[in-house]
Amino acid sequence: MDIEDLARRVTAGERRALARAITLIESNRADHRALALQLADRLSGTGNQALRLGLSGTPGVGKSTFIESFGNMLTEQGLRVAVLAVDPSSARSGGSILGDKTRMETLSRNPNAFIRPSPSQSELGGVARRTREVVALCEAAGFDVVLIETVGVGQSETMVAQMSDIFLLLLAPAGGDELQGVKRGIMEIADMILVNKADGALKPVATRTCADYAGALHLLRKRPEDPEGFPKAMTVSAVEGEGLRTAWEEMQTLAAWRRETGHWQARRARQSRHWFEEEVRLGLLARLSGSPEMRARMEALGTRVAEGDLAPAAAAHEMLALLDAAP
Amino acid sequence: MDIEDLARRVTAGERRALARAITLIESNRADHRALALQLADRLSGTGNQALRLGLSGTPGVGKSTFIESFGNMLTEQGLRVAVLAVDPSSARSGGSILGDKTRMETLSRNPNAFIRPSPSQSELGGVARRTREVVALCEAAGFDVVLIETVGVGQSETMVAQMSDIFLLLLAPAGGDELQGVKRGIMEIADMILVNKADGALKPVATRTCADYAGALHLLRKRPEDPEGFPKAMTVSAVEGEGLRTAWEEMQTLAAWRRETGHWQARRARQSRHWFEEEVRLGLLARLSGSPEMRARMEALGTRVAEGDLAPAAAAHEMLALLDAAP
Repeated sequence: MDIEDLARRVTAGERRALARAITLIESNRADHRALALQLADRLSGTGNQALRLGLSGTPGVGKSTFIESFGNMLTEQGLRVAVLAVDPSSARSGGSILGDKTRMETLSRNPNAFIRPSPSQSELGGVARRTREVVALCEAAGFDVVLIETVGVGQSETMVAQMSDIFLLLLAPAGGDELQGVKRGIMEIADMILVNKADGALKPVATRTCADYAGALHLLRKRPEDPEGFPKAMTVSAVEGEGLRTAWEEMQTLAAWRRETGHWQARRARQSRHWFEEEVRLGLLARLSGSPEMRARMEALGTRVAEGDLAPAAAAHEMLALLDAAP
Repeated sequence: MDIEDLARRVTAGERRALARAITLIESNRADHRALALQLADRLSGTGNQALRLGLSGTPGVGKSTFIESFGNMLTEQGLRVAVLAVDPSSARSGGSILGDKTRMETLSRNPNAFIRPSPSQSELGGVARRTREVVALCEAAGFDVVLIETVGVGQSETMVAQMSDIFLLLLAPAGGDELQGVKRGIMEIADMILVNKADGALKPVATRTCADYAGALHLLRKRPEDPEGFPKAMTVSAVEGEGLRTAWEEMQTLAAWRRETGHWQARRARQSRHWFEEEVRLGLLARLSGSPEMRARMEALGTRVAEGDLAPAAAAHEMLALLDAAP
């Protein structure tokens, strides 16, 4: 594979080259891995910087419709948009029930948009790690906005926030007790809360929900990386395209403020450090399965544990001592 | 601390001793850890075997009410019941919004019941690992039933299933499209689905929901560890106490069948092996933070990554080489 040629065609904006590069990044084969690192190194100097938008929303809030409307609005403004996904369920099942392109029909046919489903790795950590590399790739390919969506299961929101400049939470209108349904951790990482379905009969409920969340956000301690008025809660209607333009303006205001104050760069620096630590963590764990001898030792100890001959913690103690003694 | 004395009082069923032993297990201090392993070793010979019931249900399905009604029914039959929790949110926030005892008022005052909130560890893996040790402790303390509940965020359901003899999924009545809300992986691990709130106006919806899930379960490939008719879907009303006795009989039928056929022992053996592997994994990761030299190297490389001087993956490559070369 000619990495030099592939890199050139990716930066020239060739969709097929981009798709091929992503496939390379998502591969677990050792030779592909080496090529992927080479490609990343080759592309790191482009200096392109996209706005990386994280987007979380549980099934039913209208996430696909939102991405479709929002993405089309951005392309109408002449922007190029990439849509990626971090879907932990695909880690287990090997893919979403519905393909991402089926969910976003007009956007997927838009020449200025690029939609890529979640990589299927065996663990969420692997999914997120690969997606982060794809974000960097899309950035090198000259996209203006990279939108990374997640259903928000487990740690996936935190992981997506770790690769976003701005993190959005999409919610459906709801009343009373249901408000508590939002995981507490997410209020800490959301830069903007968008209450969708502010149309038709649900409009008043959406407005009230929005006010409730605005109130809740107000109670949180202000983060240094937030200008006055952020984190912000707004209503939108993805179906009617209502509020999307305003939401986009707010995102740009926030991004500009963070760039001016240095918080943008500081955030990216923190994120890079995080991903480095994550890479080391995953690399360490690979040790266990890498050597045939260690695999055999694990197997033998595991059998003794299964037979009730040894307690799990005691066996682990023994195995760790072996790993320490290994060359 | 006199471990011998503590062990004796735990097996004698002293609640304060049990609470103290759990606090010891949940501690991260190295000396406490050593004592906890000593205690576990001392208690491993009791031969007591509780029925370990895993229970998952999202907020709103009436999980607390179910545990309260179900737990009180069991104690009325002369059984001793321990209720534990694996709550990933407590990993981040250091505790549930409402204390577990507030949620289960009558059960918490029941002398034959013992309720313990989720341990607050920094990661879900740590929460689950400690809870598993507490399950073994409660078993040694002579409880007949150990109920381990989880809200089912991320991998927590899988982890609870890994420490249960029988895994229950509690659902609320719902219609049509909402059925797809259940994570696909959970249908694979549920032994019984209980549709709660089969009372008043919701009763017909509950009955329909139950039939829908029974149909869905029927479509799944039969697992060797299931007798005819399992996994099973049933309706219950935690508020009215309806269906709880029947559900308990079904659990006992399933447990008896699995004991007779050897699946019970095989499942526990698999689980022990799993927890051993998990202990090794967590122990390996502790290496990174254990040595001051490695911490300093991580810090230095992390700074270069944050400054954009080095890519995360390249820095990780360097760090892993250092760890390999370390004595």
